[in-house]
Amino acid sequence: MKEKPIQDYYPEDAAQCYGCGTLNDDGLHIESYWEGEQTLCRFRPRPYHTAVPGYVYGGLIASLIDCHGTGSAALAGYRDQNREPGSDPPLRYLTARLEVNYLAPTPLGVELEARGTVVEVKGRKVVTDISVYADGEETANGRVIAVQAPDDFMERLKERG
Amino acid sequence: MKEKPIQDYYPEDAAQCYGCGTLNDDGLHIESYWEGEQTLCRFRPRPYHTAVPGYVYGGLIASLIDCHGTGSAALAGYRDQNREPGSDPPLRYLTARLEVNYLAPTPLGVELEARGTVVEVKGRKVVTDISVYADGEETANGRVIAVQAPDDFMERLKERG
Repeated sequence: MKEKPIQDYYPEDAAQCYGCGTLNDDGLHIESYWEGEQTLCRFRPRPYHTAVPGYVYGGLIASLIDCHGTGSAALAGYRDQNREPGSDPPLRYLTARLEVNYLAPTPLGVELEARGTVVEVKGRKVVTDISVYADGEETANGRVIAVQAPDDFMERLKERG
Repeated sequence: MKEKPIQDYYPEDAAQCYGCGTLNDDGLHIESYWEGEQTLCRFRPRPYHTAVPGYVYGGLIASLIDCHGTGSAALAGYRDQNREPGSDPPLRYLTARLEVNYLAPTPLGVELEARGTVVEVKGRKVVTDISVYADGEETANGRVIAVQAPDDFMERLKERG
């Protein structure tokens, strides 16, 4: 049985993200998993996600790093608390800061791999470094500083929903 | 007569960007103008560009800062050379590094303003600081380090196209 991505465990009220929400019909559906001590996301950009012809749009790479960063934060948060994803209370992280370095043009038409290394889990904050590979070459990397969504924020979402 | 955005002057071979290319039918069509000493971009996210319900997706904000950053770089590059956009040789910048700070949730359903301040124009490099406002409140800011596309890169694009 295929392991479920962390995004499948996000509460329904917080699963509308354009980048990774399972309930956003127009979205990218980015998925994050553990692979040993690293986190892994595989993603194939759409043909129109071009920067210049033949290469992937930088904002799409930033989105990939962003959502895989908050996904990695949730994976790390549960592991840090010795809990299974899906157990209560649910953990959902928001991005406080995103940094992306574009190292080389990223070719379109291949599946990209984003690999995350959890740098720090401290209180409600999780820092993850992420490298993006195309055909085995690292074409971008970055850092996501993610913060657990405030409880009252999640409550307000539930009330709206 | 309405001033044309800098993106309208990008060479055809480099106007396919998902974020700001005039020739990308599926893209966001981000537009950048001078407004005095600052650069200005107005953009209304689509209803499905959600982070959590009611708020704008962080990756979209990163895309807005990215493309308005390279657009601002082109505006600044021409001005630095005392040339009009559209004069030869065309200037087209690529993002080397992108930084985004998410200060507050950005509400969906309003037009956003991204305002750029050119920090440095040095050789082929342009650094721009960008703030994003919703209803007059700064909800995100960031920095784009943009580098002028290598001449041979542009030549190769032309040969492909």
